[in-house]
Amino acid sequence: MTKMKISLIGSGNVATHLALALSQAGHLIEQVYSRNAEHAQDLALKVKARAIPSLQQLNPNVDLLLIAISDKAIAPLCQEIQFQPKCIAHTAGSVPLSVLDSFENAGVFYPLQSFTKEKAIDFKRVPLCIEATNNKTQSTLLELAEGLSNQIHLLNSEQRKECHIAAIFANNFTNHLYHIAADLLTAKDIPFDILQPLIQETAEKIKELHPAKAQTGPAARNDKQVMEAHMQHLKDEKLKKIYSFVSESILAKKHNI
Amino acid sequence: MTKMKISLIGSGNVATHLALALSQAGHLIEQVYSRNAEHAQDLALKVKARAIPSLQQLNPNVDLLLIAISDKAIAPLCQEIQFQPKCIAHTAGSVPLSVLDSFENAGVFYPLQSFTKEKAIDFKRVPLCIEATNNKTQSTLLELAEGLSNQIHLLNSEQRKECHIAAIFANNFTNHLYHIAADLLTAKDIPFDILQPLIQETAEKIKELHPAKAQTGPAARNDKQVMEAHMQHLKDEKLKKIYSFVSESILAKKHNI
Repeated sequence: MTKMKISLIGSGNVATHLALALSQAGHLIEQVYSRNAEHAQDLALKVKARAIPSLQQLNPNVDLLLIAISDKAIAPLCQEIQFQPKCIAHTAGSVPLSVLDSFENAGVFYPLQSFTKEKAIDFKRVPLCIEATNNKTQSTLLELAEGLSNQIHLLNSEQRKECHIAAIFANNFTNHLYHIAADLLTAKDIPFDILQPLIQETAEKIKELHPAKAQTGPAARNDKQVMEAHMQHLKDEKLKKIYSFVSESILAKKHNI
Repeated sequence: MTKMKISLIGSGNVATHLALALSQAGHLIEQVYSRNAEHAQDLALKVKARAIPSLQQLNPNVDLLLIAISDKAIAPLCQEIQFQPKCIAHTAGSVPLSVLDSFENAGVFYPLQSFTKEKAIDFKRVPLCIEATNNKTQSTLLELAEGLSNQIHLLNSEQRKECHIAAIFANNFTNHLYHIAADLLTAKDIPFDILQPLIQETAEKIKELHPAKAQTGPAARNDKQVMEAHMQHLKDEKLKKIYSFVSESILAKKHNI
């Protein structure tokens, strides 16, 4: 594996987990830039890099300039980069490759995982989605990816956006349902842990069964009596809405409506 | 552990998994009754029980009569039982203990797990929720539960109903989100497996972090630009509704609205 010199722009969850994984894989994180100078300093310390206070100080000779910042910040930031990097990539699911149009060797390096600062993650199991403007850049990003993960996918911008939306349903929205469930239990003095086996089993089950086949419960069997009792029981209007819309959607998928 | 003689009413997922677990724990399943005689026969064969074609043939001397049928079928079925069983219990989350009011020694034995016929389950990790009309019945059901599972909870009918609703959010609705995600990916020729690590991590994460702390994504950080782009992208009206209502609910919880 070629060891690369990498400069990193960003200091959030994705930037932090990527920097740690790249550093552990033997690459040299040379510089870290972030709008928040303190965060840049913290991250730079963790990966033995140098925090730089402005984009003008970026070293144009690194092998890769990696941009791991919020979606909307990418385009304006790119306008501030006044040189042609050897390779430049962003890490955002929903931002097309074309945002890097002014660069010759550009690509996307999107890790399809939810990162939390407090929790370590095994990068070998993080799917990495790669796209590039040319073969040379694609090879560079693929080589980098292969050193980090066992799950690499070549996806175009449209597919990557779809992945990101699917991930929001499967991760953010799912976690929100856990949150709702936790709050319902807490209000009746029941420990949230009582649901852990069910939650783990629900996630485990779809390794073997497609979710269409794994579905159970009152909506799947169109048990109106139970659903109406639950709707009566739920007092919060937001919960009622989620209960009824998701139940309708389960019914619709079950019966191809 | 006292070996019990048990008669089982029902032949669905819950009845089947319970019968197998009870039989493996050394109890004798004596009779199986189901409205569907063929299903009763199939289940009886699996646990070396006798399938009976009518409730009149129930042996009144078994230690436990266990009713694992659909919620709405419980009350009418009870009217057909013309004797006082030594102990009678149902397995439904949302049905109060009072449905068994005509019996002296009555209780509830509710396994808080999602059972699928095709998939075996480790009963030691299935939370069992117990309620009873008197101490004697409670002891009987607790002893039975302790032989099956490591996770036993004494819950009253109101708490059990809350558990059942929370379970619908955490299991049925979550599985439906997996289903939506799978369909979105399939439509763009992306394998559903690309989401497996994210789904497993989402479930794993809440073993350590409360879901309120684990939340990430555009709704949690109120990134209107990304959310609007996703809403534009989703063509299906049902998906748009789920996307917007769940996003609003995430925002509301995050900011205590």
